[in-house]
Amino acid sequence: MPNVNVELGDRSYNIQIGANLLNELGTMCQQHNLGQKCVIVTDSNVEAAYAEIVTDSLKASGFDPIRITIKPGEVSKNLQVVQMCYELLAKHRIERNSFIVALGGGVVGDLAGFVAATYLRGISLVQIPTTLLAQVDSSVGGKVGVNLPAGKNLVGSFHQPRFVICDRATLASLPDREYKAGLAEVIKYGIIYDAQFFTQLDQNVDLLMNRDPAFLDLVIARCCQIKAAIVGKDEKESGLRAILNFGHTIGHGLEAITGYGRLLHGEAISIGQIAAARLSHMRLGLSKHDVERITSVFQRVGLPITIVLDASERRSLLEAMNLDKKVVSGGIKFVLIKSIGESEFGLRVEESMVAEIVDTLHEQ
Amino acid sequence: MPNVNVELGDRSYNIQIGANLLNELGTMCQQHNLGQKCVIVTDSNVEAAYAEIVTDSLKASGFDPIRITIKPGEVSKNLQVVQMCYELLAKHRIERNSFIVALGGGVVGDLAGFVAATYLRGISLVQIPTTLLAQVDSSVGGKVGVNLPAGKNLVGSFHQPRFVICDRATLASLPDREYKAGLAEVIKYGIIYDAQFFTQLDQNVDLLMNRDPAFLDLVIARCCQIKAAIVGKDEKESGLRAILNFGHTIGHGLEAITGYGRLLHGEAISIGQIAAARLSHMRLGLSKHDVERITSVFQRVGLPITIVLDASERRSLLEAMNLDKKVVSGGIKFVLIKSIGESEFGLRVEESMVAEIVDTLHEQ
Repeated sequence: MPNVNVELGDRSYNIQIGANLLNELGTMCQQHNLGQKCVIVTDSNVEAAYAEIVTDSLKASGFDPIRITIKPGEVSKNLQVVQMCYELLAKHRIERNSFIVALGGGVVGDLAGFVAATYLRGISLVQIPTTLLAQVDSSVGGKVGVNLPAGKNLVGSFHQPRFVICDRATLASLPDREYKAGLAEVIKYGIIYDAQFFTQLDQNVDLLMNRDPAFLDLVIARCCQIKAAIVGKDEKESGLRAILNFGHTIGHGLEAITGYGRLLHGEAISIGQIAAARLSHMRLGLSKHDVERITSVFQRVGLPITIVLDASERRSLLEAMNLDKKVVSGGIKFVLIKSIGESEFGLRVEESMVAEIVDTLHEQ
Repeated sequence: MPNVNVELGDRSYNIQIGANLLNELGTMCQQHNLGQKCVIVTDSNVEAAYAEIVTDSLKASGFDPIRITIKPGEVSKNLQVVQMCYELLAKHRIERNSFIVALGGGVVGDLAGFVAATYLRGISLVQIPTTLLAQVDSSVGGKVGVNLPAGKNLVGSFHQPRFVICDRATLASLPDREYKAGLAEVIKYGIIYDAQFFTQLDQNVDLLMNRDPAFLDLVIARCCQIKAAIVGKDEKESGLRAILNFGHTIGHGLEAITGYGRLLHGEAISIGQIAAARLSHMRLGLSKHDVERITSVFQRVGLPITIVLDASERRSLLEAMNLDKKVVSGGIKFVLIKSIGESEFGLRVEESMVAEIVDTLHEQ
């Protein structure tokens, strides 16, 4: 069973990766000396599949869980749902040594994580990501938060989990579209950090598409290792950690203007990474060949690589990017790559060049 | 000009204490390399008196401030006002290197601090407390947050300011009732940590009541030193820091059942400290003489030391205490003192004994 450690001093933690780990949750919580009262936050899709086994495991180890079930999808990731959670926590007398189990995809993890970060000024959090995207990205690294009408993830904090369980078995039931969306983050790790991993993905698209268990364990573990290495060097995103945002500047903008939820996050950053690769060619001399290799992988796993925007949508996209957290005094900051595996962050790009690249997204 | 340092590694900061410091804000912000865009959060009372000078100082140093003015008092310390702030921050394109200036009393500091802690996962905060209570307590130590209908400060985080300015001149215009409420926290520092300081206050009630400038500088500096020493040893309240909650268990309960705002925080913890002193006599053998000295100081500075509750209020008070953050699995935890200046925390007290003490609050 692969096992990745995130080294953050007294906030270090472990990621367990493998199949059928959910029923070990109770034992693991005991090992971490967590308080008796706890809250499982999940969404109605995940609840049907996994809430029972998680609840039983906690109860068998003497814990006293309540459950909060939210509507699936980005629609739930807002302050109204946060407030609803707070009120239920107060009602159920959640205490400082109580903990929250985030059982679900990225939305559940981000929302439940923010509630854990801010209720009673912070209580313990256990992440059980059940989507590929959450397993390789959002459950690791402590970024939690919710959206505002004005933009995605504008409100949040850093709150590291006590431990993370990536149960690969939960991926078996994942709808095809969501699974593919997760692959967008998987491929990103190769592009920004590990050329060899990128090649491995490029050469094994069939194993990826078939959700081959052994290959998936390896892929998830490698993604978590890369993320852990980056986060371990820069927990609060004052520098290096920014490279994880490759493809996200335009990606977040696309999510904002299409209304959160129409494009999945992974789909939006698939298009965003195509744009970032093209910008990398213009700004950092990334070879045409590498731009093509990148485009080809996204295309072969079935992710969108083009989007057609009318004039008003194009304007809204540029406005949304100007609101994004990655803006500093005027320019729009991008993560770009010199070659596959070699990234640079904090590169300011003129709005006109961004607009030009956005127009190229109309076609492949 | 007294000057207190809060030692917290890379989150260390300085508290400047003195008169007429507000017009030095801009220069200090420059010294801390803060970004150009900033937000002054204040309430309508404080705005009339000090927002102009603060705004001018920032502009003179090249900063670009906007202003958010909230209604005075505890009614503003909730998630709805937080959301309103977030939306204005988004509208004004606040960036990661932007900062918030909290100009006002405890409510402004706690609310603006929570907004700073959570907007874009945390931006810089400058505290300019303008009440005695905020200067000696809430602006120092990084606790920020808001109330829920279910209880006070149930939502929040730890977010240390970049620096704090305690301008004693702002106290001159403070209404008598609010000034006295601040004295409740001042006296607390003597009770929990420094017998000599308690005696000094006890013997100089007249200087306190006359707001003697030299004595006030000394008092504010000593309070900040004590708080800095405690917070420096236990930033996140895993132990020692709890002693700062002396009088707060019952005090918070009283605030909750009377509707936030009817009793000022200082008034509530004045009564709460009387109760805690009596509990200390029963549980830790605090001398009758010390209980009387404590009672006498609060009484002589004009703070309430009794409260009459009917049967239903009494029940609500005990319920509210059970919801407070200071509860762990059943019992109610108290900070108590063995003698003046010598406190113990985490003492579990049976609800029946708490009820008994609450009944003694009917009379002196």
